[in-house]
Amino acid sequence: MGTEARYERLAASLAADIRSGKRVAGERLPSVRELARLRHVSINTAIAALRRVEQLGLTQVRPQAGYFVCASATRAPEIAQVRPSRQARSVAVNQLIATLSNAVDAPENVPLGTAVPEASWFPFKTLAANAARSLRAQPENLALYGELAGVPKLRNQIRSRYRDLGCHIDQEELLITNGCLEGLNLALRAVAKPGAVIAVESPAYFGFLQIIEGLGMKALALDTDPNTGLSVQGLETVLASRSSSRPDCLLLASSFSNPSGATIPEASKATIVRLCADYEVPIIEDDIFGELHFHGSRPLPLKSFDRRGQVILCSSFSKTLAPGSRIGWVAAGAWADAIRLGKLMLSQATATPMQHAISQYLQEHRFDRHLSKLRATSAEHIQRFSEAIDRHFPVGTRISRPIGGYVLWVQLPKGSDAELLHERANHNKISILPGTLFSTGNEYRNCIRINCARTWTNQVATAIKQLGQLAAEL
Amino acid sequence: MGTEARYERLAASLAADIRSGKRVAGERLPSVRELARLRHVSINTAIAALRRVEQLGLTQVRPQAGYFVCASATRAPEIAQVRPSRQARSVAVNQLIATLSNAVDAPENVPLGTAVPEASWFPFKTLAANAARSLRAQPENLALYGELAGVPKLRNQIRSRYRDLGCHIDQEELLITNGCLEGLNLALRAVAKPGAVIAVESPAYFGFLQIIEGLGMKALALDTDPNTGLSVQGLETVLASRSSSRPDCLLLASSFSNPSGATIPEASKATIVRLCADYEVPIIEDDIFGELHFHGSRPLPLKSFDRRGQVILCSSFSKTLAPGSRIGWVAAGAWADAIRLGKLMLSQATATPMQHAISQYLQEHRFDRHLSKLRATSAEHIQRFSEAIDRHFPVGTRISRPIGGYVLWVQLPKGSDAELLHERANHNKISILPGTLFSTGNEYRNCIRINCARTWTNQVATAIKQLGQLAAEL
Repeated sequence: MGTEARYERLAASLAADIRSGKRVAGERLPSVRELARLRHVSINTAIAALRRVEQLGLTQVRPQAGYFVCASATRAPEIAQVRPSRQARSVAVNQLIATLSNAVDAPENVPLGTAVPEASWFPFKTLAANAARSLRAQPENLALYGELAGVPKLRNQIRSRYRDLGCHIDQEELLITNGCLEGLNLALRAVAKPGAVIAVESPAYFGFLQIIEGLGMKALALDTDPNTGLSVQGLETVLASRSSSRPDCLLLASSFSNPSGATIPEASKATIVRLCADYEVPIIEDDIFGELHFHGSRPLPLKSFDRRGQVILCSSFSKTLAPGSRIGWVAAGAWADAIRLGKLMLSQATATPMQHAISQYLQEHRFDRHLSKLRATSAEHIQRFSEAIDRHFPVGTRISRPIGGYVLWVQLPKGSDAELLHERANHNKISILPGTLFSTGNEYRNCIRINCARTWTNQVATAIKQLGQLAAEL
Repeated sequence: MGTEARYERLAASLAADIRSGKRVAGERLPSVRELARLRHVSINTAIAALRRVEQLGLTQVRPQAGYFVCASATRAPEIAQVRPSRQARSVAVNQLIATLSNAVDAPENVPLGTAVPEASWFPFKTLAANAARSLRAQPENLALYGELAGVPKLRNQIRSRYRDLGCHIDQEELLITNGCLEGLNLALRAVAKPGAVIAVESPAYFGFLQIIEGLGMKALALDTDPNTGLSVQGLETVLASRSSSRPDCLLLASSFSNPSGATIPEASKATIVRLCADYEVPIIEDDIFGELHFHGSRPLPLKSFDRRGQVILCSSFSKTLAPGSRIGWVAAGAWADAIRLGKLMLSQATATPMQHAISQYLQEHRFDRHLSKLRATSAEHIQRFSEAIDRHFPVGTRISRPIGGYVLWVQLPKGSDAELLHERANHNKISILPGTLFSTGNEYRNCIRINCARTWTNQVATAIKQLGQLAAEL
């Protein structure tokens, strides 16, 4: 743990030098031995730090010569923070989604819209074989409603994975859901009523905004740093305020947030949980990308810092293993009874065959091996896509620097209309998502989200080039 | 059709004679030849009518002697109609459900609570084999989100079953859901807002009441006949009223309603649809038991009479084929777009493996054969349970006379407390549901619902006897 923290600190310092322009494109970084001497660290720590910086897409190895700062690392700047409105606003993303969804779903498009990997990145054959075996072994499961909370073995396995992180989840609070979305719906209905104010990040995952709209609630976008996520200061200000915009609930993804990729540092996570507990504001946490860190250890969910059942954690296997299984979960904290009842009313027990199949897969210890492959592939593709965007998009484009997940958030030059780009891209058989989906206002009209979890083929490379040309013509 | 109508009329007339006491217990009915002569019908019609009356549990065959009126047919009277409150009321069934649900779920109990058949009544081995085959043939489905509306082939098969009834459902309006419940939630959210008044039957399925409560709506219970269901006159009165209790939506099961078993006659169904269209009130129809008729042809859903997309039909395979598959559907009428968006927000696409498995099953033409077996078994068990209840329950008990489905609605003598009976039954390892679950008021405190879809074993027979004793001690 000590070593890890040391190499992380060193990598962060090198990355900051590169991003700030202190070290420029083409510059050679110190060698392993130089770095170890200069920074008073071990050889192993220096190696790990240099590798991390490379994983971040900031440097490239030239054999026999060392690590060199990438052109892209200093050229396309990071995303600039946009300050959202200070008012809680009613939400209206559903109409836009209705307009877009046909285009996004078009099977003939290069699918850079939906945040889902190419099928081949998932071990679907093993999972399908597990599912088939479990169906033949326990066919009677199809004739029974199943336990409302889900298959006990799978629930225990999920709890045990969190326990290994130091995140305690009670048996009674964990419920299997139809994907993460159903969990988020149940959670928001359990903690807040129509008219309630829900604090969200800026930009925020459009699914959050859809649910807020659907339940007749309001969204309050909080200041959010493109890298470190939700501003603790900003949160404290609105919690302490007595205006009608004081939030009734905080809804966020604290690690590898969608679309920004921002990850809240651990110390801030602890503060956020404490603040919300002090003000008695429940937190709903979407941890769906939490396992997809590119380096170091998995970031802790907010739930790890929760001592009072104030945090409801929602997640699923959709981004990591099998979107088609539609298996998610909620760790409901103090709202376990309400969420159980909500689930009973909404869809009864989740179908069990896929629960058994995933449970079998977890039992065979295959999940961690698969995850580490998926992480490496995602990191590699985030870098490839970043470089290509950097090369082909117009000057003034900014790109997010996610350290996990597989989406990029791209700010086009001021005045660009991302909805128009979406339309033209769709006309060219490329799906992307326009930034307007991710806010209640118009702050992200010049942004797009790009799913990078697509094997880097000529077709994909051409699509990015085309997108860049279309963006230049806006 | 002509013949069928004739034998149905004749059967209804004989049944009325028995139920009214004109023909008493032990009396022999006319023979086939006598009946044909007396009523001027063919031999075949007379045979069919006598069989129908037997299926209703009103007569028994004695070999070589003919049909005799059952003791039970005249002894335990039919359910007496209870007039519900004329006011729209807020609903609070969830607390009661929370209290009961552990008891209902207890696996060691004789399960007469939940309305679900014994596993062996379902062809789960065939279905599981289909599912396993489809998983191995198309494992990549697990790695894809799937189409939001559901697997096209299954949707076409469902539409084609309705088309065979003369009930037209558009391709665009049909959406696969996580069971019927999710469909009902989506439908109610699409047509009404918090505070809206939802007209329901009396008694009404507790799932309806839960959803109404969950969405902050109010329920208005309409006059309902124990056999012919919703009173058309009563509906017209509330539709024409200008009070705050005028309904914004009608939510009901028009065939083999749960718990009453009532089935609205076809002519009244047509009138109900016309009335609601005239007053522009949408109808949400739960058709989940619609295929489980004991005789004649499947009753038409309200949707068959809909010319304007005013009726949203919700159903599933949970009562007929595979509750564990969690596959239901919504035919959304004029609300197709809203319900699509609602589904996208609530849980995204429904998992596809079970959709493929059921589709395969339907394609092999196994479903109708299975249904006809399930209908016969259900009819037989409704009769057996009715006779046993009649024999063992206290004098003054009344029993519903369902002509489809598999639940009985039992009115205990006035003053009996069904919640207390539920508690004592549970203590004796028997699950039933108390009538208080099925209304917003206290009208059904002396009623219970009994699931009869359990193979008639000594254990079940003993449970009914015990229930009768417990009821007598109330």
